[in-house]
Amino acid sequence: MNTRQVDGIAIIGVGLIGGSFGMALKKRNLAGRVIGIGRNPERLQRAAELGAIDSWSTELESAVRDADLIYVSTPVGLELDFIRRAATSAKQGCIITDAGSTKGEICHGADELVGNSIHFVGAHPMAGSEATGVEAAHPDLFVNAAYVLTPTERTNPEALAKVRSLVEAVGSRVIVMDPESHDRCAAVISHLPHLIAAALVSLAQEHSLQDPQVLDLIAGSFRDMTRVASSSPVLWRDICLTNIEAVEAAAEHFKRLLDEGLRAVESEDAEAFEKWFARAKETRDSLFPQNQGDKKGRQ
Amino acid sequence: MNTRQVDGIAIIGVGLIGGSFGMALKKRNLAGRVIGIGRNPERLQRAAELGAIDSWSTELESAVRDADLIYVSTPVGLELDFIRRAATSAKQGCIITDAGSTKGEICHGADELVGNSIHFVGAHPMAGSEATGVEAAHPDLFVNAAYVLTPTERTNPEALAKVRSLVEAVGSRVIVMDPESHDRCAAVISHLPHLIAAALVSLAQEHSLQDPQVLDLIAGSFRDMTRVASSSPVLWRDICLTNIEAVEAAAEHFKRLLDEGLRAVESEDAEAFEKWFARAKETRDSLFPQNQGDKKGRQ
Repeated sequence: MNTRQVDGIAIIGVGLIGGSFGMALKKRNLAGRVIGIGRNPERLQRAAELGAIDSWSTELESAVRDADLIYVSTPVGLELDFIRRAATSAKQGCIITDAGSTKGEICHGADELVGNSIHFVGAHPMAGSEATGVEAAHPDLFVNAAYVLTPTERTNPEALAKVRSLVEAVGSRVIVMDPESHDRCAAVISHLPHLIAAALVSLAQEHSLQDPQVLDLIAGSFRDMTRVASSSPVLWRDICLTNIEAVEAAAEHFKRLLDEGLRAVESEDAEAFEKWFARAKETRDSLFPQNQGDKKGRQ
Repeated sequence: MNTRQVDGIAIIGVGLIGGSFGMALKKRNLAGRVIGIGRNPERLQRAAELGAIDSWSTELESAVRDADLIYVSTPVGLELDFIRRAATSAKQGCIITDAGSTKGEICHGADELVGNSIHFVGAHPMAGSEATGVEAAHPDLFVNAAYVLTPTERTNPEALAKVRSLVEAVGSRVIVMDPESHDRCAAVISHLPHLIAAALVSLAQEHSLQDPQVLDLIAGSFRDMTRVASSSPVLWRDICLTNIEAVEAAAEHFKRLLDEGLRAVESEDAEAFEKWFARAKETRDSLFPQNQGDKKGRQ
């Protein structure tokens, strides 16, 4: 069904995303050989056993030398250093792509680093989990997921087309945006919600000093709303710190909207509150028509 | 396994909660006969067909006359009126309990209304859904759910014990709190989160005016975090408007905690942010140890 699209692929950082990408390629015979690169031999060996990669190495420079495509899926804060090292050793015409959750700093930084003979294509698969590590990887993680490609004015069109084709072949919906638009959108639908989830959990914890039973009352909606607060603090530190401006703007906007609802409550304006809530319900029901009332929650 | 605990039960408002309670009683043979009371004959007939009630009536006063227990599961805003009407027609010694999401106004209001020969026991089952209606009802909705009983200084201890026994028999974990503590806790873990979910949805919708693609990027975490924004605006209007003070206090506390995280981002204080997020992760992982990384989400 699928045909080989790339010969040699090197994956730097074989965790949930990198491991899933390797599995996705291998399951669909999209790549000739997949080499995993990391620091920890045991984890790399585990990734090989799980079928995420064909072989592995802890020596980045030699391992990327024959790659036609290098997939950088390390924590955001480490990416530019790995891209720099990969670009230095990669062969002419090699494409480097990444899976970082923020794109502005990385894409413009990478443009500066890779020179003219290596092509960088920034990307962000909107798939993942609060789980980490190759043990959570899955060959169909990207199926039906949005996969954002963020070309800049310096991105090579053929390299972009090649990454696009590969990403579509693993089942994703490709969305093309400039890095700044991506970062603004990610702040709204992902980065700020992570901060909100963390603040909600700490609210319940601090409130338990006043009413210890509050934690016994927790169920459905609170569990779902705070799931992402179980994500990696180090990962999310780097994501937020590479997207400060957009996170700030999203937070200000969110607080304005929340305050609108709160003002309606405080002034006992039943009509205004109902309208405020109904507007959100209408939007959400149109975004997730199949999700209306299909899950147990709590009132 | 179970034995009959109450002879005649009248359920006022046979929707998701009332219908599920009827089903739960009947499945476990806990009640002699269950009569449903409402305004809409078709919906009541549907509830009877689904096995939530044995019979039904649209005449509240005559229908509650023989009941040993009256279960009021109407929207919060209508409860006190139904409790007043039920108490006027109920026989001596009858117990009235409710399922309202806020307790202060209802419990103290009901204490005034019921007089000495009728016993009111305030309650709030922490089960439910953004779905409404008896079609979504289920005989095991209350199994393992927290079911809060909120006695006041005027609550009859035998009536409280009877409701407790019935609620335990349908599988719930009983938690006893005073109405004010309940309302503070519910504001923290349920009412404020509903406002936050609604504000998040409206944020994405308004942001789409700037970046239309934002809505295409939405997946896992955002879907889960905003699920309760699909709840009934009328229901949530009444819940919030009967718990204004506690919602306000929870919102202030939440905003302080969110601002702590935002300040760490804005001042690029990596260590402070990591600590702030890690604290929430630790709390959440201890609350939901089985939930760590068990669901697909998004980064």
